[in-house]
Amino acid sequence: MEINTSNYIRDARLIDRIVSAKDAASWIKDGMTLGLSGFTRAGDAKAVPTALIERAKEEPLKVNIYTGASLGSDIDKLMAEVGMVNKRIPFQADSTMRKSINQGELLFVDQHLSHMAESIRAGALGPIDYAIVEAVAISADSMIIPTTSIGNSSIFVEKAKHIIVEINTAQPQGLEGLHDIYETGNQGERSPIPLTKVSDRIGTLGIPVDTDKIVGIVFTHQIDSASTIVQPDEETQTMANHLISFLRKEVEAGRLTNKLAPLQSGIGSVANAVLHGLIESEFTDLEVYSEVLQDAVFDLIDAGKVSFASCCSITLSDEKMKQVYSNLDQYKDKLMLRPQEISNHPEIIRRLGLISINTALEVDIYGNINSTHVSGTHMMNGIGGSGDFARNARLAIFVTKSIAKNGNISSIVPFVSHVDHTEHDVDVIVTEQGYVDLRGLAPIERVPLIIENCAHPLYRDQLWEYYNEAKTRGGQTPHVLEKAFSWHINYKKNGTMLEKALN
Amino acid sequence: MEINTSNYIRDARLIDRIVSAKDAASWIKDGMTLGLSGFTRAGDAKAVPTALIERAKEEPLKVNIYTGASLGSDIDKLMAEVGMVNKRIPFQADSTMRKSINQGELLFVDQHLSHMAESIRAGALGPIDYAIVEAVAISADSMIIPTTSIGNSSIFVEKAKHIIVEINTAQPQGLEGLHDIYETGNQGERSPIPLTKVSDRIGTLGIPVDTDKIVGIVFTHQIDSASTIVQPDEETQTMANHLISFLRKEVEAGRLTNKLAPLQSGIGSVANAVLHGLIESEFTDLEVYSEVLQDAVFDLIDAGKVSFASCCSITLSDEKMKQVYSNLDQYKDKLMLRPQEISNHPEIIRRLGLISINTALEVDIYGNINSTHVSGTHMMNGIGGSGDFARNARLAIFVTKSIAKNGNISSIVPFVSHVDHTEHDVDVIVTEQGYVDLRGLAPIERVPLIIENCAHPLYRDQLWEYYNEAKTRGGQTPHVLEKAFSWHINYKKNGTMLEKALN
Repeated sequence: MEINTSNYIRDARLIDRIVSAKDAASWIKDGMTLGLSGFTRAGDAKAVPTALIERAKEEPLKVNIYTGASLGSDIDKLMAEVGMVNKRIPFQADSTMRKSINQGELLFVDQHLSHMAESIRAGALGPIDYAIVEAVAISADSMIIPTTSIGNSSIFVEKAKHIIVEINTAQPQGLEGLHDIYETGNQGERSPIPLTKVSDRIGTLGIPVDTDKIVGIVFTHQIDSASTIVQPDEETQTMANHLISFLRKEVEAGRLTNKLAPLQSGIGSVANAVLHGLIESEFTDLEVYSEVLQDAVFDLIDAGKVSFASCCSITLSDEKMKQVYSNLDQYKDKLMLRPQEISNHPEIIRRLGLISINTALEVDIYGNINSTHVSGTHMMNGIGGSGDFARNARLAIFVTKSIAKNGNISSIVPFVSHVDHTEHDVDVIVTEQGYVDLRGLAPIERVPLIIENCAHPLYRDQLWEYYNEAKTRGGQTPHVLEKAFSWHINYKKNGTMLEKALN
Repeated sequence: MEINTSNYIRDARLIDRIVSAKDAASWIKDGMTLGLSGFTRAGDAKAVPTALIERAKEEPLKVNIYTGASLGSDIDKLMAEVGMVNKRIPFQADSTMRKSINQGELLFVDQHLSHMAESIRAGALGPIDYAIVEAVAISADSMIIPTTSIGNSSIFVEKAKHIIVEINTAQPQGLEGLHDIYETGNQGERSPIPLTKVSDRIGTLGIPVDTDKIVGIVFTHQIDSASTIVQPDEETQTMANHLISFLRKEVEAGRLTNKLAPLQSGIGSVANAVLHGLIESEFTDLEVYSEVLQDAVFDLIDAGKVSFASCCSITLSDEKMKQVYSNLDQYKDKLMLRPQEISNHPEIIRRLGLISINTALEVDIYGNINSTHVSGTHMMNGIGGSGDFARNARLAIFVTKSIAKNGNISSIVPFVSHVDHTEHDVDVIVTEQGYVDLRGLAPIERVPLIIENCAHPLYRDQLWEYYNEAKTRGGQTPHVLEKAFSWHINYKKNGTMLEKALN
């Protein structure tokens, strides 16, 4: 395919900076720090990282990798395989890299997604040598037009010493016009972020760039990795129904209207099932203010249920990608992409009063949440934006199935083995058993409700047994520290958290 | 003393609502919810609660008590003694009430101080029957002028069904003009909070009130309880020096200037020592944006070091109270009191980029913080504003002495027995041993630094022993769950966390 480069590079001075991915990768030196575009498999820089992985197979090379969130195109997997990552920030979701992290082969800093730009701006994360960002174009007025995610690209572009742009001609050109880039400025010198409605445009259509810093432009033609949506099973559907019942009750109590409040939902099949559940519901004129938009949000837009959706990344299944990207025009006035600092900003989350739905790994009887660590030690993916949202939302809702591994793991435990969200920040917990509304409840009021409404019947007696013993010791948050982690220890030893094994 | 009531009640229609505290207290019914003014012993409603306590001695009476934070005048203590509290939100600091809480005699909801107004506004905490707020006056234009704290008074006044005003003629009239009352409005309908500088005035001089709701006005004449400042000992002084060294390094690294950034400091002798340490330092033109101002901030103002201090409460020692309150004029252009929702608001904390200094009870080797629960079960005071600040500050600093109880307790433990601030939200830890800067570090990078720089030498080998065993099990955050709480268990059994007892 012949490419008319001037369609994509509209500043003629930059045309001669076109290079191959291999050449661009050759500039990167051992020990450098790279800021890569990419958030949940969307909009990631693809060619240069791949070329760098090839180099790392041939020569000693370790770099620090900063991104928006998880990458697609197997980049995290391949980087982990060749062992080229020294430090990885702030999120990843690849099973091979996960293994490397848990074996201590690479350093992983699990950071709130809204905090990374602030850390970089404050100079707390060290200099970034190369920003490598995917774009649909570089505009005539010196802006990089991102593709399907923005993530941390704007802060990388602003702060990096050098910039490599990957122009991906496989990404729909129609993305141009959907971005809204806003830079907060330094702490202590900034104005209020002027966003008061989900649909407000507050910034520029692209990332303003000092073109002198662009050292290379690489043309690529490769679509994003498709998201792998897990279809809802009976239990996820039940959870979605519970959650919708809860929302309905909030409307009845006069705390919400049928318009609800802007919705944020993490990635996952429950969140997806909840959103799908809204299609057939009485709720209407909904808005989404989230990190990632998955298939369900577009279905809601198509059904006329969602009037506007703001995000920092669009991650779709193969089929949905085809449908949406060949009809982007029909979403143009209903869609906006923002930097993750803005999509996840406490100022905005609190102002808009989001309803936030995220997944828990483990919940304890007092409502503390573990989102990240299996058995308190092994990293799953990372906290992502769940903390950004839960701490500031109108309603911080966490969902999890009550059991896993055929009943050998209870998601409701006496004491979570790692705390990502404290009892202070959790409003509602939903499992397939039911839900609890923890607002305004003291810890000892929460216990019976969590056990009876959320725990699996298999584990209720065991939870009561723990709590009844704990109560004899007194306190605001009664515990038997000797037994607090006995369930996890039992699982490790005997393959089950059940005191009396199932078979 | 003859009081000219019209000086204090400037709306003539309200003069006939003057009642005795006893009469006002008689209106309160069993099961009601009261919203009391008061934050850290300052500006609390004194007479009506005291009269209510007298009533509760004679007849069965249980009420829910919502406040700004802790109360003075022994109100919490006396209420706990007569057993008249059903539920207490969001903070307290009285030893008698603490005991009642830990014995399960009253329900305590330990809530972020900035969240309470939002919870009330959202209808998540149920209706408030009576707001009882202390004032220096009711203005001619229908505003309640608070006294030495604002706390949650403005939201109580707005949302309560009825209002009782306690006009305290012992509070300095000069307080009038120092308040700045701002109401955010409902989530989803509100504008950005227009505060961009510590000294910005954004609201009204008093709490706007629907005077029809004022059912009683009680005159009182009783000064606030004095704060009990603990003089710095050698160790607190050393901690203050470490913290100042850290700030100096930040200036050297170009991340701060000699003006630093607006300071927030919790109550406590270390915070106080740090602030005092700034008097002799090179830092200058400082600002304070905090919940509570204690003596040290006024010393800094007097020394010409602090140019402006914003707070929601002023809590002074006896001596300082006399000095400050008889010379309020000289502080008038350097001081402002705001509702706790605004003094602790994430939007403002992040925008201004505060340096936040709070006290930890316990820190673990990965940087998680316990601020509230002794041995994971027994409530100390509450999380207060520490979470509001730590989660959004430019620098979230936690201070604690490395040991307690003559060395039998280590404040640095393998696994904190309760988590109030997660590893994601803690930047710097200071003990008398030294400090660690955790920014940008993976969990396993933090461990050696926390052990070597912060733990007491008595416990370093024991911490290494735990961590070395944990490491053999792998993971992002290695732990030996069987032994995670063994130190706490050992302390309970043997009175020491040391494996080999000291004597």
